[in-house]
Amino acid sequence: MGNPKIGITMGDPAGIGPEVVVKALKSVEIRKNCIPVIFGSYGIILQAARKYAKNLKITKIESLDEIEESKINLFDCTNMNPKKIKTGKLNYVSGKMAIDSVLACAVACLNKKIDAMVTAPLSKKGLHLAGYNFPGHTELLACLTKSKSFAMMFVAEKFKVILATTHLSLSEVSKHLSTKLILEKMELANFGLKSIFKIKKPRIGVCALNPHAGESGIFGKEEKKVILPAINLAGERKINVFGPYPADSIFSPKISTKFDCILAMYHDQGLIPLKISGIGNAVNLTLGLPFIRTSPDHGTAPDIAGKGKADPKGMKRAIQLAIHLSQK
Amino acid sequence: MGNPKIGITMGDPAGIGPEVVVKALKSVEIRKNCIPVIFGSYGIILQAARKYAKNLKITKIESLDEIEESKINLFDCTNMNPKKIKTGKLNYVSGKMAIDSVLACAVACLNKKIDAMVTAPLSKKGLHLAGYNFPGHTELLACLTKSKSFAMMFVAEKFKVILATTHLSLSEVSKHLSTKLILEKMELANFGLKSIFKIKKPRIGVCALNPHAGESGIFGKEEKKVILPAINLAGERKINVFGPYPADSIFSPKISTKFDCILAMYHDQGLIPLKISGIGNAVNLTLGLPFIRTSPDHGTAPDIAGKGKADPKGMKRAIQLAIHLSQK
Repeated sequence: MGNPKIGITMGDPAGIGPEVVVKALKSVEIRKNCIPVIFGSYGIILQAARKYAKNLKITKIESLDEIEESKINLFDCTNMNPKKIKTGKLNYVSGKMAIDSVLACAVACLNKKIDAMVTAPLSKKGLHLAGYNFPGHTELLACLTKSKSFAMMFVAEKFKVILATTHLSLSEVSKHLSTKLILEKMELANFGLKSIFKIKKPRIGVCALNPHAGESGIFGKEEKKVILPAINLAGERKINVFGPYPADSIFSPKISTKFDCILAMYHDQGLIPLKISGIGNAVNLTLGLPFIRTSPDHGTAPDIAGKGKADPKGMKRAIQLAIHLSQK
Repeated sequence: MGNPKIGITMGDPAGIGPEVVVKALKSVEIRKNCIPVIFGSYGIILQAARKYAKNLKITKIESLDEIEESKINLFDCTNMNPKKIKTGKLNYVSGKMAIDSVLACAVACLNKKIDAMVTAPLSKKGLHLAGYNFPGHTELLACLTKSKSFAMMFVAEKFKVILATTHLSLSEVSKHLSTKLILEKMELANFGLKSIFKIKKPRIGVCALNPHAGESGIFGKEEKKVILPAINLAGERKINVFGPYPADSIFSPKISTKFDCILAMYHDQGLIPLKISGIGNAVNLTLGLPFIRTSPDHGTAPDIAGKGKADPKGMKRAIQLAIHLSQK
């Protein structure tokens, strides 16, 4: 088996996407272990390479059948004019280029022309400007691949986290939690750990919603009413779930190391522990898609775009995880 | 100036309190830097010392004027029968002994017979059984000292945290947050950092409530309506507050190290980051009392009481912080 073909979208060109892509591909380690295929604008990527990755040779291909090993392939999948891009300013063209890259890359995955996809950041605002009403990559890819049940998994060195709810105000979280939703995320985590990470009997730790896991109902009843029934149902389906644990104890190394993945009930509950070890250390992985898709954990960062300050660490880790999971 | 006199309550004797107290006092480092005065039952402490700290000599004193340097003093402030205590089982006698110790120690602090107090764990249930309707030490001590405005500060190696709300179900948090409450906690933190930690111009970082700090109101409006007004009012009162920061970024080392203290909006938001570094590493400090009071961050742990398994690390750190702050 040769090296996997890893599709890499350039992200919104008004942000730091192209910069982190070319910087990441300077890594000999990465180039040695995969055949990179950039999806985006040749003009934009060439410009980024000249600025941030001198001596990096990019080979433009006209069709995905031309992908060559030991080269950095670029599939020019957008016919927008790169001159319309203003660094740091999202506009229709930047949003459209970003989405064109994602669509072409996803289609290549579906057609098995490539083995996995890694996405550089785009933004909700850029998508809107380009006429697409999706909050981000995940929902766009789910729609494109007709995946009804999906979730983000955050893969850090020390633990993996998946979220039951994502971008909700804190006061809305409890209303959105249901036994059905939690069970769905448990099933996704279990399936993903088995099929993608090749863990035979995954162990999933479940966070409580309330402090001290509700302390027998004194500080909230969701543990008894919503979370425990999901744990019991998952047990009946032979999924190894444990909890609910107070969220301030499950992430301590003594407990978190017992699990292959931790299911958090809301955004900050899962993201606070992840980001403590430093932004750029966790990789996002979408569960529920018919292919592997990873991404770094940072955004388009228009404030530092064009300044050469963007750290490619997150992008490198996202590519490395995609390589690793494609080889399994 | 001689070594500070540190009052140490024995906690609920059905739990691990007496065990961690005598184990902590085995530390030569601690005995060298303070004059320990245990508040509790002589019978109970003697029994614990025989089991867990052989060769530790405890000197019973009849009055606080008898405190002797280079000795471990014990002020027997409860006349309950130690034989009524059953390890692991909270009852009226265990709860009463625990509260008698706290009351005597607090009075000694108020009368300046000792310089600070360190409390071993007692439990809400034990207090109830003894007829006292307080959730814990903090509220009991606040009531006793007529302190209307008080807060817990968690002091870890890497950062200090104070909480705007504590033991509430997650869905109740938003309703309890008000500009007045948040401003009160900012003032407590500022005063505590100045008066106890002797920091001239304390810098306080403030957590947002919602993911991405509400992302301009899309994921919640409390940042704009409640937290920002408190930050502005604090600014007018010359308190250095910054934020609100998304909670998943403020605790990353790059940001948290900029602040002397971080104000979290709810229990798990502050406690998840603290406990990641390991239970026993953070010390609780009550702000707003007329004296210094610290405690370890664990509970009575009746499940392991009497088994010799209790780790005195938290108690040692609590005593060390009390010593350190008494010397400032």
